[in-house]
Amino acid sequence: MSDNKYYTWHTEPMHAYEQHSIAIKGMPVSIQTPFQQMAIIDSLRFGRCLILDGKVQSSETDEYIYHEALVHPGMIAHPAPRNIMVVGGGEGATVREILKHPDVEHVVMVDIDEEVVENCKKYLPAWHMGAFDDPRVEVLCLDARKYLEETTKKFDIIIIDITEPLEGGPAYLLFTQEFYQIVQNRLTQDGVLIVQSGSAANNDLLCFSSIHKTLQTVFPQVKAYHTFIPSIALLWGFTVSFVNENRSVLSGDELFCELEKRGLTSLKYYDMETHLSMFSLHKYLRESFEKDGKLIQDNAPLTY
Amino acid sequence: MSDNKYYTWHTEPMHAYEQHSIAIKGMPVSIQTPFQQMAIIDSLRFGRCLILDGKVQSSETDEYIYHEALVHPGMIAHPAPRNIMVVGGGEGATVREILKHPDVEHVVMVDIDEEVVENCKKYLPAWHMGAFDDPRVEVLCLDARKYLEETTKKFDIIIIDITEPLEGGPAYLLFTQEFYQIVQNRLTQDGVLIVQSGSAANNDLLCFSSIHKTLQTVFPQVKAYHTFIPSIALLWGFTVSFVNENRSVLSGDELFCELEKRGLTSLKYYDMETHLSMFSLHKYLRESFEKDGKLIQDNAPLTY
Amino acid sequence: MSDNKYYTWHTEPMHAYEQHSIAIKGMPVSIQTPFQQMAIIDSLRFGRCLILDGKVQSSETDEYIYHEALVHPGMIAHPAPRNIMVVGGGEGATVREILKHPDVEHVVMVDIDEEVVENCKKYLPAWHMGAFDDPRVEVLCLDARKYLEETTKKFDIIIIDITEPLEGGPAYLLFTQEFYQIVQNRLTQDGVLIVQSGSAANNDLLCFSSIHKTLQTVFPQVKAYHTFIPSIALLWGFTVSFVNENRSVLSGDELFCELEKRGLTSLKYYDMETHLSMFSLHKYLRESFEKDGKLIQDNAPLTY
Amino acid sequence: MSDNKYYTWHTEPMHAYEQHSIAIKGMPVSIQTPFQQMAIIDSLRFGRCLILDGKVQSSETDEYIYHEALVHPGMIAHPAPRNIMVVGGGEGATVREILKHPDVEHVVMVDIDEEVVENCKKYLPAWHMGAFDDPRVEVLCLDARKYLEETTKKFDIIIIDITEPLEGGPAYLLFTQEFYQIVQNRLTQDGVLIVQSGSAANNDLLCFSSIHKTLQTVFPQVKAYHTFIPSIALLWGFTVSFVNENRSVLSGDELFCELEKRGLTSLKYYDMETHLSMFSLHKYLRESFEKDGKLIQDNAPLTY
Repeated sequence: MSDNKYYTWHTEPMHAYEQHSIAIKGMPVSIQTPFQQMAIIDSLRFGRCLILDGKVQSSETDEYIYHEALVHPGMIAHPAPRNIMVVGGGEGATVREILKHPDVEHVVMVDIDEEVVENCKKYLPAWHMGAFDDPRVEVLCLDARKYLEETTKKFDIIIIDITEPLEGGPAYLLFTQEFYQIVQNRLTQDGVLIVQSGSAANNDLLCFSSIHKTLQTVFPQVKAYHTFIPSIALLWGFTVSFVNENRSVLSGDELFCELEKRGLTSLKYYDMETHLSMFSLHKYLRESFEKDGKLIQDNAPLTY
Repeated sequence: MSDNKYYTWHTEPMHAYEQHSIAIKGMPVSIQTPFQQMAIIDSLRFGRCLILDGKVQSSETDEYIYHEALVHPGMIAHPAPRNIMVVGGGEGATVREILKHPDVEHVVMVDIDEEVVENCKKYLPAWHMGAFDDPRVEVLCLDARKYLEETTKKFDIIIIDITEPLEGGPAYLLFTQEFYQIVQNRLTQDGVLIVQSGSAANNDLLCFSSIHKTLQTVFPQVKAYHTFIPSIALLWGFTVSFVNENRSVLSGDELFCELEKRGLTSLKYYDMETHLSMFSLHKYLRESFEKDGKLIQDNAPLTY
Repeated sequence: MSDNKYYTWHTEPMHAYEQHSIAIKGMPVSIQTPFQQMAIIDSLRFGRCLILDGKVQSSETDEYIYHEALVHPGMIAHPAPRNIMVVGGGEGATVREILKHPDVEHVVMVDIDEEVVENCKKYLPAWHMGAFDDPRVEVLCLDARKYLEETTKKFDIIIIDITEPLEGGPAYLLFTQEFYQIVQNRLTQDGVLIVQSGSAANNDLLCFSSIHKTLQTVFPQVKAYHTFIPSIALLWGFTVSFVNENRSVLSGDELFCELEKRGLTSLKYYDMETHLSMFSLHKYLRESFEKDGKLIQDNAPLTY
Repeated sequence: MSDNKYYTWHTEPMHAYEQHSIAIKGMPVSIQTPFQQMAIIDSLRFGRCLILDGKVQSSETDEYIYHEALVHPGMIAHPAPRNIMVVGGGEGATVREILKHPDVEHVVMVDIDEEVVENCKKYLPAWHMGAFDDPRVEVLCLDARKYLEETTKKFDIIIIDITEPLEGGPAYLLFTQEFYQIVQNRLTQDGVLIVQSGSAANNDLLCFSSIHKTLQTVFPQVKAYHTFIPSIALLWGFTVSFVNENRSVLSGDELFCELEKRGLTSLKYYDMETHLSMFSLHKYLRESFEKDGKLIQDNAPLTY
């Protein structure tokens, strides 16, 4: 009687001339918050997905790739990360991964959009796995830049887990040289900044290379890496920056020992070989870092 | 911050090579019943829509066109329709229109899919407007053909409100010569059969002309008509058949008087000029009725 | 080996929240002219189609419906149409239909876009059928409004065969009260103006009702009509206006005689019953004409 | 006047529930050959693309990634590759890369579909760059398996450059254990087999892991690797197999020296760091190789 086809699709504009579409069988949330459109969809291909302003933020079947890639290479490179700040990260999965590091004492997550956070708590338990209830975790629904300008706290790790630095709106002010200087002032001596950095595809590198170049003007040590996220249909870039010029990402024996020491040998995605793959950059990426990036400033945001 | 675009679409295959897509902001129902896929979506263009097996059945903004066109031309042509049967019609809007005729004493609606009926009751109040609660209305979730074969009741009006006669599955057995003969036996002396008949577009007339031809083998008087349904993006065909060869659709003064007499002068869609537009057939349709239709039988269903 | 599916689609935005898509197997033309994007596609469902700025103008399988509906009801209502002007009409099919009226002595077609006209000549022979080579036909690639302002000629029939009056750009100046006044001055005493008028769907009547209202401020007699165009997936509106208040569209015996007299009894689409269907307006359309239209003026164009 | 939007899209079904769509402005080729549907499209995002049975084979902006990744890691691992066979590879870009290795004396390319090869020659000059005219190159339009069964020649390198091993049709016979045994017999003592191996996304590994497992039953040394192809929107897998159990892919100093020796230090994509990224496998891939693959045999092809 029924042909078992699916007729409802989430269609994501990856670019003016490119779309990625996934069939959906449910849409438990579809709201306009004061800040953005939010949807939670149940897709046939990637399970449940969080969508903000039309873009998949993470999906049930591959969020572990994104969140492990985002959190661990930077945190493992800090000798004892105790105080952590997350900017964005509404799903709670970034916090979930942070809490796996045994030295963590306090995590403050600052996400401007309370409705997003509340709906993620309710509808994405497989993401946060109760992390919001951990006594070490504090969630603030504020403008993260304002918070960082006003606080006197210092953090060992700051993670910027927000997509879309390029488009209009306040988010772009979280990707500028001025913002990175504010961040740098709020990091401890061995502090580490991790920035989700957008597409690493060979024909779409302006954002990644510009974030890389801008961070290099503020931090003495900056490392880029990438991994493939199926639900986003892109190789995705990340950048990790160090306040202390003598620190960098770990590798080889150091990485092995530190993973052992922290009990992180059974992660689903991140291990030594995965690390090597992520931090060995394709040639076009290295070339782009040398020539393509532009300095992002408050009065000179990225625009295509 | 938000660009107010919409990213989720219901995409309906009108044909292997043609699709109609509408943006949606919600999906309160998405289930697989024992008989079909059912969804209720909230579209930006046509309001709420009922979707069965991927096809829009009716939409909030134009269901009145479909249901008034389906019900009134046939019912107004019967002198005093008292006992009515509806095959399908899960939304309850066909029953709603039927109840506007003052002579109606009993309406039995036979829809095979109880889950569809229950969800329509709950989620489509603007369609049924309480019609299911009217004491004259009886809803049976049964195979309509079997019911008609077994009942000894006779009806003044039988309305076949089911889409998709062409494809596999039991629905096609409600569009065959054998079925129409069963129906004819269950109609009273002045009985009227109304059949929703599919596309009336010039390049897609096989279904409409075959239903027309098949009905002509069973009934002495058969009239076709059509109207445009925006949410289906098609000119849509209907066929009304009369047991009594001396009866046919009304027109002119007769129609005027009868609408007055029954208090049907303030319908949203149907009136004398609308009637004239629907029953004046485009030339390609008249030509197709003369040459294209094939006889539909239990062992020779329509296939493209 | 091959599954005979089709993977390339023309997707037409009917509205921000609605799309109509057709599978294509070829794209013989795809250019940007100084005025618009032009494509000629070979679709699986509607044969060859002319596309301007993303919108199907007419298709091989139903252009006869559009062009016969556009030309004949207005021309048959003029006692002896000799001098005709077409604004737009690049395909040449409007001219083809005009030339079927035996009194026609001269047709001037004014289309601003020479590249469109040249490509239509080359790629749409089934549309123009050589009409461009008829000695009675003159093609001018000019701004039609300017031409009408400057010419001293008078025409029996003027046909505005341009889609999209609503959007920015010069086309909207061909749908204003001021333009219709210019046109009125260039029509003979029994002159007739025919205007393609956009969607006649119940949820999309602003354009049609506004053209209707605006024409009523200039002409003493204005009649609207509609027909369904499958390749556009819409009921489509037309408006015919008369300089002489005692003239109007023909019907009944008059229409019968005039079609006979001009040898127009074997058209593919237009005949007396088709005429009746087109000119009997659905109730929502009559209601919209009474209340929805706004006056379109040069400084007050239509905008959604 | 024109809004510079694009309305024609190539939509590729990546999976029943997932699509990748790219806007196109031209379609110079669209044919049905005896073996498959072939199209060449001009996309806005990836330039010209070759499409077979609806799937992008390679695109102008990233074919160098695909073809360098396919050819060089395997060829550089052979001490002196002289006789090469390519199965498929219609675009000619695989041959183009092969010819960069200075020892190459003869390349035979066997592609079953002559129409594809001829159209690639004509429309994809940026791919083959004249490689088809190189006196060392021989093109045969034959069934590759039959050719390998019948020839007595031996090859140093055989490259299987065909997508879609999974679906029905003869292609699947080029991905079975029996076929790999035939290939193994036609390789020289230090011979290398390179197989394009499909998706390396974490939720779509059945094909890659099955090819890997099947090759391991025939060859003593098998290495998998991957790279991201933007126009395919996927991490893409490759497998390289060695007849001689003491041989494997190069790395470190060996790779450095060999690239120098062959003058391959200025490739667009492939170099030592790129190599490291490709051959360091993500954890989910290593796990899948251990547990998911099934043995592919002539009478047990892959099916989803």
